[in-house]
Order: sequence, then C-alpha cells, then structure tokens
Amino acid sequence: MSHLLLAVTPLKNQDIQVLNDADITVVTPDNVQPEQINEIEISYGWSSEIGTKMLTSPTSKLKWVQTMSAGVDYVPLQQLSERQITLTNASGLKSVPIAQSVLSYMLHFARGLNIYQDRQYWEEYTDQYTLAELPTVIFGTGHIGQQIAEYLQSFGTTVYGVNTTGRPVIGFDQTFAINKLTELPDDIQVVINVLPSTPETEAFFDDAVLAQFKQLYLFINAGRGTTVVESALLTALDNQSIRYAALDVTAQEPIPSDSPLWHRPNLLLTQHTTWAAHNAVGRSSNLFPLFMRNVPGYLANQPLTFNVVDLSRGY
Amino acid sequence: MSHLLLAVTPLKNQDIQVLNDADITVVTPDNVQPEQINEIEISYGWSSEIGTKMLTSPTSKLKWVQTMSAGVDYVPLQQLSERQITLTNASGLKSVPIAQSVLSYMLHFARGLNIYQDRQYWEEYTDQYTLAELPTVIFGTGHIGQQIAEYLQSFGTTVYGVNTTGRPVIGFDQTFAINKLTELPDDIQVVINVLPSTPETEAFFDDAVLAQFKQLYLFINAGRGTTVVESALLTALDNQSIRYAALDVTAQEPIPSDSPLWHRPNLLLTQHTTWAAHNAVGRSSNLFPLFMRNVPGYLANQPLTFNVVDLSRGY
Repeated sequence: MSHLLLAVTPLKNQDIQVLNDADITVVTPDNVQPEQINEIEISYGWSSEIGTKMLTSPTSKLKWVQTMSAGVDYVPLQQLSERQITLTNASGLKSVPIAQSVLSYMLHFARGLNIYQDRQYWEEYTDQYTLAELPTVIFGTGHIGQQIAEYLQSFGTTVYGVNTTGRPVIGFDQTFAINKLTELPDDIQVVINVLPSTPETEAFFDDAVLAQFKQLYLFINAGRGTTVVESALLTALDNQSIRYAALDVTAQEPIPSDSPLWHRPNLLLTQHTTWAAHNAVGRSSNLFPLFMRNVPGYLANQPLTFNVVDLSRGY
Repeated sequence: MSHLLLAVTPLKNQDIQVLNDADITVVTPDNVQPEQINEIEISYGWSSEIGTKMLTSPTSKLKWVQTMSAGVDYVPLQQLSERQITLTNASGLKSVPIAQSVLSYMLHFARGLNIYQDRQYWEEYTDQYTLAELPTVIFGTGHIGQQIAEYLQSFGTTVYGVNTTGRPVIGFDQTFAINKLTELPDDIQVVINVLPSTPETEAFFDDAVLAQFKQLYLFINAGRGTTVVESALLTALDNQSIRYAALDVTAQEPIPSDSPLWHRPNLLLTQHTTWAAHNAVGRSSNLFPLFMRNVPGYLANQPLTFNVVDLSRGY
C-alpha cells in the first residue's frame, strides 16, 4: 500500500520520482483532496492549516513530520506527543552558512568595517581587535554552536559553551550549565546565542542575565528572537554596557518599521537570512537528502534515528 | 665600544634598558647630536631625513636598518646595497591582523553585511555566499598570504597562490608563476593581492591582468597601493566585471577628498589600518622582540639571519 506524503515544502521533480520509486505518493497543499487529508502519513514541512486538520481528526494517519528548520517552536509539540507522531528537524543543515554569518558579525566590528563602510573621508580608525582578543561564550552547543566554535578555534579565540548540564563538548575550551552562569569567566567579550526557542529559553536574555557580563564588546543572536528581551538589550546598548549587537532574529519578523531596533549604528540587523548560500535557492534547499536518511527506517516500520526531536524538550 | 642605535620608531623604557645592557646606546631623531650621526650603526625604523644624511656621508658607520613594516619600498635599497648595509623588515609581525581583515572583507560581502548595515527597513537580501563557494587566488605566498590561506582552508575555500616561480607553498591547493597567469583556473571568484611593492609589481594589476578574470566577485588589495592601476579597477567595478572591491592600500594615502575612489557602494576603503589590533597601540608594537632576534648575531659580527631583505628583489 502506497504511503501519502504532503509536501508543504516544495520538492523537485527528481525528488518526487525518488519517493514514488519508494512507494511514497506526493500531494501538495494546492492539490490535496479533502478525502486525502486523513490518509497523509508524512508531512514534509509544516502547514498550520492542514496540520491542524490532521491533528484534530481522530482517524488521521499522520506519523512523521519533517521540518525545514532546526527550530521547531512553530509546531504543536504537545499534540504530536499525544498522537505519538515523530518529529524530525533540519538541525545541522544550515550550520555552515549560519556560523559564517556569525563570524562575519565578529570580524565586521572587530576589524572596523562598521566604521569604514560609511566613512567616506580619510580618518584612520584603529580601535580594532583580532579575534584572539575577544574571548567568546556560545549559548547552545549543538550543530550550529559547534560549527561556530570550530571556526573561532582557527582564529585562536577562547571559546566557552553553555548548555543544559554543562557537559563538555568537543571544540569548546570549557562548558558551563545554563543555571550556573555566575561561574562564567569574567574575561568574556562576546556572547553568541544559538539557543532553540523552548519554554525554558523564552525571554532568557533579560536585564539580569545581560548584567552578568559587566562589559561586553558584542552580543549576537542567531538562534530565536523570543529568547532575548529586546528592551533589555537596547538599554544595555544605550548605556554602553554592551558596545555592539548583531541580531539575525527578532521577537517580531518582519521588524515593524516603527521598531526602536532600527537606525542604531551599534546594532546590525540581518533579517533572518543567515541560512542563505549561493547554492541554496531557498530556505529548504538541501533538505531532501537529510530527509531521505530516515526514509528506509520509516518504510521498514522502525523508529526514526536521524535528527529526531525530543518533544518534551523542544529540540 | 658602545654601539649607537637611532630609534626612529619609538622604544619603551624597558626595551632601551635591554639594549643598554647589551652595550647599545639609543638616540632618537629629537635628541641625536649632529656629531653623532656618523656614529649611528643601527637605524630602528627609517627616517628619510636622517637616513639621507647617513647614506651620503662617506664616514657613516650605518650597518643595519630594521623597518617596522613588511614592505620596504620607501627605503633606498640601491644605496643600502652599495654601502653593504643589511636591511631587515617586519614581515610576519602583522600577518594575523592583516589576514583577519582580509577575511572580514570576504565575509562582509559574502554574508550580505554591505547591504544590511545600511538597510534600515525590512527587505530580505539572500544573494549570499559561503566561503567554500568562492575559490580564491592570493598573489603573494609569504607570511601574510600563508596566514590568509590557513584561515580560508578552515572555511573550505579552494586557495590558489601566485608567486615568482610557481613553487608550491604549504596551505595553498595549487600555485602558479606570476608570468603564467593564463594557467590560472577559471573558477576563481576572489583575487587577494598581498604583493610587495617592487619595480616588477608596479602597476601590475592593469586592464590586461584584471581582464584575465572574466567575472570576479571580489578584488582585495592588502599589499601596496602602487601595485594596482586604480583607473582600471574602477572601470571593472563600473562595468561589473568585478562586483566588489576592498582596498586597504591605495596609490595615494591619505586618499584625496576629490578622489573617484570615494562614495562607491561596491568599494570598501579601510585606510591602511589592517595592521591594527587591540593590544597594538601603534604600527610598531611587537616589533622589538622580532628585532632582538638579530641582536646577538649583530654583536657577534655575524651575518643577520631573521627577516633579511634581498636588496635586489626588494622583499
């Protein structure tokens, strides 16, 4: 019996052929028939509209959801858990471009490009840093955090990590538990956040956490916007306890035109595009090979093993 | 008998003490007496005024000139050669900050920061590159070129090198002779120039050489300004055969306010400051330990061995 897959995230014709050969039929949100919705077993990408229909139908056959993102905060995890639906994410898929954007932020400020891009007259700016002079802590030691740490190590930067338990992770000079931030060394100059959005990380970077760092050179958020209390960050930028910030993600996206985030020379906003690469024509590119790693197990009725999300933790 | 050193480049008190202990007396351009000029054996840094006096005096005892820069194009090499004066340069001293600035230029454009720094409204820019998508050729495979290559390798970039003979150099995927540029692979997207200024490299990057690269993403000059024909580069930027350029060095420094180099969104100018680092309070910082490596040999009347410039080649 053929398996039905809903391609919320578009698939190339050649990928559809691969699926058909594996006895998987593909429908899209545009061409799915109402009577087919209960037959869908796999959701490739997530549509909240059709997703809600499946999750509220007692006879839905939905068994597997594959997201195109590493973060899964927009998927109803509790309902998936209750229905014993497996969720796999795209963790690792965008680690390289995201980590390279994070490095670009650090070098942009450290090497004075924030000054020089707009300075159209001769006046030397030499208040520069090499990356070895900027000890860094990365909140989140998963795929993305590890890729950032690997790049920073090649520049001689001291790299600390923060994760749930403080367990050691390769590539980090030292790691700390997120509930023991007072143990962090006091030479930290750069904070990089790549934490997922979960109930625990919601509004995590507030006045109190930011105040842990008496004097920061740079705060970077390439995780999820909801983890940062933006008013607290703006206050710190205003009173210069944080000198610069770079946010790829924000609480509201698109950022409203009247947001206080705009028009600050010490705040760089990159509009949730760190995933981009020249060979990636959209956010979902390169997702299919990662998805395919779980297909044989699925067809064999075995538990999925790659990039399975712990629904109780949310990552 | 005490040796006399002219400190054109300032020395710290503690460094002067080290020299005094080695029987080297220090004078500066401000306190040197006219009758002492012929007694100077070592010029630490180069003053064209006092230097000319020494080189035109038949009784000058000048034996050794140490520059604070890697490039020595401002020192009269021919006259030093005739007088058998040894020239040592600061090659390698600034490789790390210079190479990090070069990386900052690449990531700045590749990750869209040139767009986002000035975009103060929401409009996603996703025409981005990862560094592995930008095969790069470095002209100059010395200390600085090798450091750039090492960083680029950690990003997975293919790195070609160009030097006088095409001899292989560690860290470069492939090297080519400068007189055989037609052999360069045609997938090159980035040209990085760190060539020294010599008669051979004067105006090297002209229309013809730039035309070797049909379509370049980025041209970087972190070597010497005289090596690039700026009008040729501007023409290439105008007709978009070169998309972006970043120049740390220019033919004229400071760049005149009416120069056509200013006010181009696709041209970044960093005003000869890639040497800068937070722990470097001036261009000459960290020079003294490098200089000291040759002092024992000098005092023992042996040929100097570290960073000795070939006066006939100019580097």
